[in-house]
Amino acid sequence: MQPWLSHPFDDDKLTEECGVFGAVNVQDAANFVALGLHALQHRGQEAGGIITHSADRGFQSAHRFGLVRDNFTSAKLMETLPGSIGIGHVRYSTAGSKGNTAIRDVQPFFGEFSMGGAAIAHNGNITNAEAIRKELIERGSIFQSSSDSECIIHLMARSIQRTHAERLKDALRRCEGAFSVIAMTRTKLIGVRDKLGVRPLVLGKIGDGFALASETCALDIIGAEFLREIEPGEMVVIDHKGVVSSRPFERTSPRFCIFEQVYFSRPDSIIGGRSVYETRRQIGVELAREAPVDADLVCPVPDPGTPAAIGYSQESGIPFAMGIIRNQYMGRTFIEPSEQIRNMGVRLKLNVNRALIKGKRVVLVDDSVVRGTTSLKIKEMILEAGAAEVHFRIASPPTMWPCFYGVDTPERSKLLAARMSEEEMRAFIGVESLKFISLDGLYRAAGEAEGRSKSTPQFCDACFSGEYPVEPSDMIARGFELKAAE
Amino acid sequence: MQPWLSHPFDDDKLTEECGVFGAVNVQDAANFVALGLHALQHRGQEAGGIITHSADRGFQSAHRFGLVRDNFTSAKLMETLPGSIGIGHVRYSTAGSKGNTAIRDVQPFFGEFSMGGAAIAHNGNITNAEAIRKELIERGSIFQSSSDSECIIHLMARSIQRTHAERLKDALRRCEGAFSVIAMTRTKLIGVRDKLGVRPLVLGKIGDGFALASETCALDIIGAEFLREIEPGEMVVIDHKGVVSSRPFERTSPRFCIFEQVYFSRPDSIIGGRSVYETRRQIGVELAREAPVDADLVCPVPDPGTPAAIGYSQESGIPFAMGIIRNQYMGRTFIEPSEQIRNMGVRLKLNVNRALIKGKRVVLVDDSVVRGTTSLKIKEMILEAGAAEVHFRIASPPTMWPCFYGVDTPERSKLLAARMSEEEMRAFIGVESLKFISLDGLYRAAGEAEGRSKSTPQFCDACFSGEYPVEPSDMIARGFELKAAE
Amino acid sequence: MQPWLSHPFDDDKLTEECGVFGAVNVQDAANFVALGLHALQHRGQEAGGIITHSADRGFQSAHRFGLVRDNFTSAKLMETLPGSIGIGHVRYSTAGSKGNTAIRDVQPFFGEFSMGGAAIAHNGNITNAEAIRKELIERGSIFQSSSDSECIIHLMARSIQRTHAERLKDALRRCEGAFSVIAMTRTKLIGVRDKLGVRPLVLGKIGDGFALASETCALDIIGAEFLREIEPGEMVVIDHKGVVSSRPFERTSPRFCIFEQVYFSRPDSIIGGRSVYETRRQIGVELAREAPVDADLVCPVPDPGTPAAIGYSQESGIPFAMGIIRNQYMGRTFIEPSEQIRNMGVRLKLNVNRALIKGKRVVLVDDSVVRGTTSLKIKEMILEAGAAEVHFRIASPPTMWPCFYGVDTPERSKLLAARMSEEEMRAFIGVESLKFISLDGLYRAAGEAEGRSKSTPQFCDACFSGEYPVEPSDMIARGFELKAAE
Amino acid sequence: MQPWLSHPFDDDKLTEECGVFGAVNVQDAANFVALGLHALQHRGQEAGGIITHSADRGFQSAHRFGLVRDNFTSAKLMETLPGSIGIGHVRYSTAGSKGNTAIRDVQPFFGEFSMGGAAIAHNGNITNAEAIRKELIERGSIFQSSSDSECIIHLMARSIQRTHAERLKDALRRCEGAFSVIAMTRTKLIGVRDKLGVRPLVLGKIGDGFALASETCALDIIGAEFLREIEPGEMVVIDHKGVVSSRPFERTSPRFCIFEQVYFSRPDSIIGGRSVYETRRQIGVELAREAPVDADLVCPVPDPGTPAAIGYSQESGIPFAMGIIRNQYMGRTFIEPSEQIRNMGVRLKLNVNRALIKGKRVVLVDDSVVRGTTSLKIKEMILEAGAAEVHFRIASPPTMWPCFYGVDTPERSKLLAARMSEEEMRAFIGVESLKFISLDGLYRAAGEAEGRSKSTPQFCDACFSGEYPVEPSDMIARGFELKAAE
Repeated sequence: MQPWLSHPFDDDKLTEECGVFGAVNVQDAANFVALGLHALQHRGQEAGGIITHSADRGFQSAHRFGLVRDNFTSAKLMETLPGSIGIGHVRYSTAGSKGNTAIRDVQPFFGEFSMGGAAIAHNGNITNAEAIRKELIERGSIFQSSSDSECIIHLMARSIQRTHAERLKDALRRCEGAFSVIAMTRTKLIGVRDKLGVRPLVLGKIGDGFALASETCALDIIGAEFLREIEPGEMVVIDHKGVVSSRPFERTSPRFCIFEQVYFSRPDSIIGGRSVYETRRQIGVELAREAPVDADLVCPVPDPGTPAAIGYSQESGIPFAMGIIRNQYMGRTFIEPSEQIRNMGVRLKLNVNRALIKGKRVVLVDDSVVRGTTSLKIKEMILEAGAAEVHFRIASPPTMWPCFYGVDTPERSKLLAARMSEEEMRAFIGVESLKFISLDGLYRAAGEAEGRSKSTPQFCDACFSGEYPVEPSDMIARGFELKAAE
Repeated sequence: MQPWLSHPFDDDKLTEECGVFGAVNVQDAANFVALGLHALQHRGQEAGGIITHSADRGFQSAHRFGLVRDNFTSAKLMETLPGSIGIGHVRYSTAGSKGNTAIRDVQPFFGEFSMGGAAIAHNGNITNAEAIRKELIERGSIFQSSSDSECIIHLMARSIQRTHAERLKDALRRCEGAFSVIAMTRTKLIGVRDKLGVRPLVLGKIGDGFALASETCALDIIGAEFLREIEPGEMVVIDHKGVVSSRPFERTSPRFCIFEQVYFSRPDSIIGGRSVYETRRQIGVELAREAPVDADLVCPVPDPGTPAAIGYSQESGIPFAMGIIRNQYMGRTFIEPSEQIRNMGVRLKLNVNRALIKGKRVVLVDDSVVRGTTSLKIKEMILEAGAAEVHFRIASPPTMWPCFYGVDTPERSKLLAARMSEEEMRAFIGVESLKFISLDGLYRAAGEAEGRSKSTPQFCDACFSGEYPVEPSDMIARGFELKAAE
Repeated sequence: MQPWLSHPFDDDKLTEECGVFGAVNVQDAANFVALGLHALQHRGQEAGGIITHSADRGFQSAHRFGLVRDNFTSAKLMETLPGSIGIGHVRYSTAGSKGNTAIRDVQPFFGEFSMGGAAIAHNGNITNAEAIRKELIERGSIFQSSSDSECIIHLMARSIQRTHAERLKDALRRCEGAFSVIAMTRTKLIGVRDKLGVRPLVLGKIGDGFALASETCALDIIGAEFLREIEPGEMVVIDHKGVVSSRPFERTSPRFCIFEQVYFSRPDSIIGGRSVYETRRQIGVELAREAPVDADLVCPVPDPGTPAAIGYSQESGIPFAMGIIRNQYMGRTFIEPSEQIRNMGVRLKLNVNRALIKGKRVVLVDDSVVRGTTSLKIKEMILEAGAAEVHFRIASPPTMWPCFYGVDTPERSKLLAARMSEEEMRAFIGVESLKFISLDGLYRAAGEAEGRSKSTPQFCDACFSGEYPVEPSDMIARGFELKAAE
Repeated sequence: MQPWLSHPFDDDKLTEECGVFGAVNVQDAANFVALGLHALQHRGQEAGGIITHSADRGFQSAHRFGLVRDNFTSAKLMETLPGSIGIGHVRYSTAGSKGNTAIRDVQPFFGEFSMGGAAIAHNGNITNAEAIRKELIERGSIFQSSSDSECIIHLMARSIQRTHAERLKDALRRCEGAFSVIAMTRTKLIGVRDKLGVRPLVLGKIGDGFALASETCALDIIGAEFLREIEPGEMVVIDHKGVVSSRPFERTSPRFCIFEQVYFSRPDSIIGGRSVYETRRQIGVELAREAPVDADLVCPVPDPGTPAAIGYSQESGIPFAMGIIRNQYMGRTFIEPSEQIRNMGVRLKLNVNRALIKGKRVVLVDDSVVRGTTSLKIKEMILEAGAAEVHFRIASPPTMWPCFYGVDTPERSKLLAARMSEEEMRAFIGVESLKFISLDGLYRAAGEAEGRSKSTPQFCDACFSGEYPVEPSDMIARGFELKAAE
């Protein structure tokens, strides 16, 4: 009897590390924040936190491990978070600290300053955080967490500016990397995106109040109207009088994360004026054009592959079918029943629709291949159920480089595509065919009719291309080697 | 700040009350039972229990509220359940006791008899249980639960037969209604279905051992081979020597529950040699023939409506799309954020893919209409997102009568279709059109090419037709009125 | 790192197995029951239960492992137990089932009868329970617990009498052994003691209502007036109209348990018109007369030895001192720090007052010697702290026989006094002197000026004398050998 | 049904705020720390924390609300705290934050410095902490707790010294007030007492290792040898090589807290070479001389009054008796049963030994009078039980001033003795007589044969005399008025 500490599938996906949400000038802000975080739960399931402010009780906070629905739904807890302004954060642990996260690593972070308290919640990654931390410790700061985000609040504490917003600008100008930051003071909600705009941040209106969120789906859940995206390099300061925008950083061409389009963002969110679902369906259409195949059924690997599979079916004319069924009651761990059974992990989560698949030539559409372990197991399940042929179609290009901008990626040596060619991967997985969408195809599906601009790519696609728009200085100091110039 | 005690959607579905699973002659039987129950979790989420037997520890049991994954995955708990034989049960509370279920109502039930202990797990409903209970109490039996299933073990205790299997036959011959029962002694696993075979029960083989389960998907998860369905009116007694079959009840025409096909069973289960998914897709095809409409998109109400929506799309040629997205982290309760927001309940679970739906004529395919509250809310969401037209297509006939055979149904006066005609329902929900599949169409989709036989229907369809194959005597004693003869 | 599963001291005491409490015709009876059980916690710490009845909610129950203060103090739980009548029970596990007690073994037990429900709580032990259980199972009763007390409710269920009280009489006339039973119906509170009156039961008045309790200290805590003891062989039936007494059993000379006087009962309880504390102080006086010694200090082994130590000091003139201090925050388990430390168990609970003891001749007064392990450890602690001489004085005669009337005793071979003479025990423990009070001295201290009557002893003292007033028939069937006739 | 949020008795005692313990060069240091804290539990029951260091895992910590026995006894938790060095802390909340303590207020506190991590645990109170905190925040430090003790670690972070010990000296030289501090680095255990030595700190030896503890009883529990007290104004730095002592503060006459002698310290601890129990017994002797009375019984208010009651009995010749019995299963909260019962609070904890007290003239010995509420209730209980006369004798002088050195005291206006003369108090409580020991009597009992030195008192007795050895500057800034010069 051996417990499973983690699900194999969870290990074989890139995972977003954070979602952020803030609301101001609304009654019982904490409830809005909890709902917003619930809608953003796909961006981080390990832990969540909320901080609010009210005249009576000052700043109050709650940080909890586990899902929003399991923590921030208790009337008893929510009553400890009064006030009309609040921010929150959901997080996924980074590779290094997985399972070792302390509750003090859970955001938002709070600091008491001479002009009053402030809290911050950060989505992204500060790529020079280690250097900043070392310097601050030498000067007498005491860090409470192992999070890169804590640098921001210590830099604010040492700024000589007079307002929280100016101190936040000071702090972020010192930071490199990717960040969408939400901050709050007693009366103001602040939102900032780095100059490249790698991570998303959107603005909504609800009654007389405002909300900031990682994605539009979090505005929908509270019934807020989606106003616009915060622009790359923009700071907004919001209170009961309205929204004031400024531009603290130098201007440059934006590089939004293209993996948000492929996998991270929810399909019902809107990015760049377009439904993420539609972009993904279009990826399926492009895939069907780039990599057609003669087959009987197109089946998604549930649930992320569904929109692309629909697109592939529509473009190819091959019928769409739910050949793999997902168990909606899946949890994280289970006891392995004995040596008699292999591949239990997959069966706990997915089951093949045997009567449907038997004797068929099946196109399986998945969002990405990371380590390749999932693809192997799914192939085995499908063949065991009697499929005649298996063809994998992948809705993203080969993932060959780690992300340093807020996504949890295995080290390079663990990435299948960093070690094998497409044909080697096909043979390794053991299927009739395996095809990835091209980078240009992906850009087209994302609305760039001309494909990827070689000179200044329209997105950050470092995980596919190895071209990092911001040099990851901490990682280089630790020995990471950039792609050799061609 | 008001907690929601239950989700509006959960109230507006018929819910299966039980799933059962047993294994014999396997190592660590409890692990198999836990996995099997996990696969059957859709049949009951309120509580679950497992009983095992080993030479060292005798009979051991664990009964817990909550999901299998949250209870029966702890190595500490599972180690208290040793042995190579075991049975388990997942349950949903009945309408009356909802929220008041005591742990002693959770099956399996155990009794010590003079020839040794035995445990039972029951899916279905004994329609004369109240009469039996009254009689047994007068004769000195002490009931521990409010469950109808407890009658069975007390009847066994008073039987004068010498073996557990014979006593179980004695007991069940006294019972009316619907039952698939799994029982265990120290060495034998027993399975029985009532003579009509209203509830499912299947037999599988795993290594040198055997398993009994409500559905084939529970065999798949443990890697067991599906051998056959237990037949209506059949008892099987299984030990390390093999399976012995007998026929304790008089023969009659079977009446399997057609709602298992429409909604209860998992789409990847096999019933009557056919995938449930395929039957549901075929319902969509029949619906498209019976009730065509000119529209832009076919969208399922997720997740149950998906197969029928695919079938409707394929038959009609209207593109299939995920116009409504389900939040996979949904829990049961949430704090309502304030009066500002209406219909929060739906938004916690579902979100409309606004960019996709806007300006479109949408066909929404749902599995059933019970109270009608869900349909109302979904219509509002879709219209608010800007749909041009909404057409509901329902994958079952109008639900007009309560089930007394193991399904939790609202009382008749709460069923929308018991109070309104199809046109009245359309007007009430406020959509362009609303169509239910016909009974004959449903039978065709379920494999009966000629449709429903008027004289002896091939299924139990009392919830649609009001024709109860077994008279619900306890309910009639309480004043329930059968449909008047025509 | 090895956890301690139980404290060595807990293993080296005889432990009472139960306390019972009931109240009728009072507002919020459950609160009175909880308070009464809290005052009786010394009679059983493993688990407790309460059942109440109200017109609105019928019978409601709660059974919990752990202390009363940790369970029955939650407003949320107590609100589920409405009504003006209720009974409760605290239990200690018996030797056999220690650590294996299931929640279904926790009393009160409830049964639904044709004339309405009833619940019982039992202090004592039915010495022919195994024979009764076997017979009832053969006739079709299903037992839920491993408790001897469950026989009573099944016997009631099979009685043909028309009232609960008459059925209880029927049931108890079939039972041998020791019992103080409290029962409740919808309106009546019933109390019964066996004809020997081995276990205590007292009656109190509170406002317009009444209470029954194992000891008077439980009346004090709720502010009830102590009316009288229920007499041996008496049944009282109490409702809003008052108390009705009857005598269902044949009369005989009473044999109250003398160990209640020595150790079980709380020192502030009143038995036979006298404070238990005063009886224990008088035991110390008798001990000083029977076994004087030249010494510097008299120290109790805390806390049970304190009253006798005070008596010994007063009679002998040797100063009383707290030479051993008890840690009031003691729990049940602790991690052993390493091999470096021996006798940690004692140190967790007790610490020697080193500066006081050093160089002194010390008389240690303890209540009893069971296995002798405690005495050994205390002697070591005292010597290590530098005492010049150690003299043990024991406030009870040598414990040589197991109790079968509701006290948890080690088997005979584990009792030190069953294997050794007084001098052998002294040498084994390794002290200057060791003296037990004589049986006659104990009877004198308990108010019998003439000492123990050889012909018909005034108390049950089977644990000291081996003379069992009721033949323990189940145990004899299992092979237990009575003391040979002299 | 109203829950009691706190026990009236708990409100009517002065409470020590902290106990500290550290061990170095021992195997599994965390186990020793847990045991030491368990022995010091009387100094703080609200929460506890332990930090250890090991080469493999670095610094690890656990902070928990509740008792040591309920948290730090789990093998699972203790295995997360490996290493041969560790420190711990138990705390009681201060008046202001009661019930609002956050887990981040629980010590030990940890900081990462450029030369490595360090942790501190503090017993006492920094009287200029507010001023220090304000200054540090202005310079960019971020505080995590509301504790005065956190100043110390921030001051260390900003020190320019090269070693942790030197930085700690720097930090503490900036602090005013009372402190016994234990600190740890990766390899060194450090102990410091302020120059007056207000709070205790002792040094012990265990095997090849050493331990520091608030009291000697914590050395006893782990079997450590008591070496000596850390002297007022001394710092010791301990590693595997031994103990190095230094004197960082200027010398002055020590002023140990005399209330440690009266109430806080455990009776089996040794202070100034003498058992605390013996000092307390001697207080009883002095009281009998100063305030004799003609009576039948001397009874302690359990448990703190016991040693003084024994002394009073021995000096006066009046028999000692346990007239009030303490319920050893007392918890913190209980449901109040109804309006029918008054004074339930006292009854939950104490019960009068009615048969003993009735008709007697009783001397009650208690340790102190704070608000007077306890004395009132005890008097009522004793009279209700039929006592003929009640005489209170108090083992400390009237408590008239708040403590600012680490003890939780009500504000001055709540102290009975600050508002009434001795005779007024007697009349208020309603007893035949009420007498406090004199300051000189107390000093004599504590070993100062000449009594209190007017010029330089040998102890800190500010709570009785209003003479504060260190000016409480934060409190004066908030408006506290010192006693007017006479």
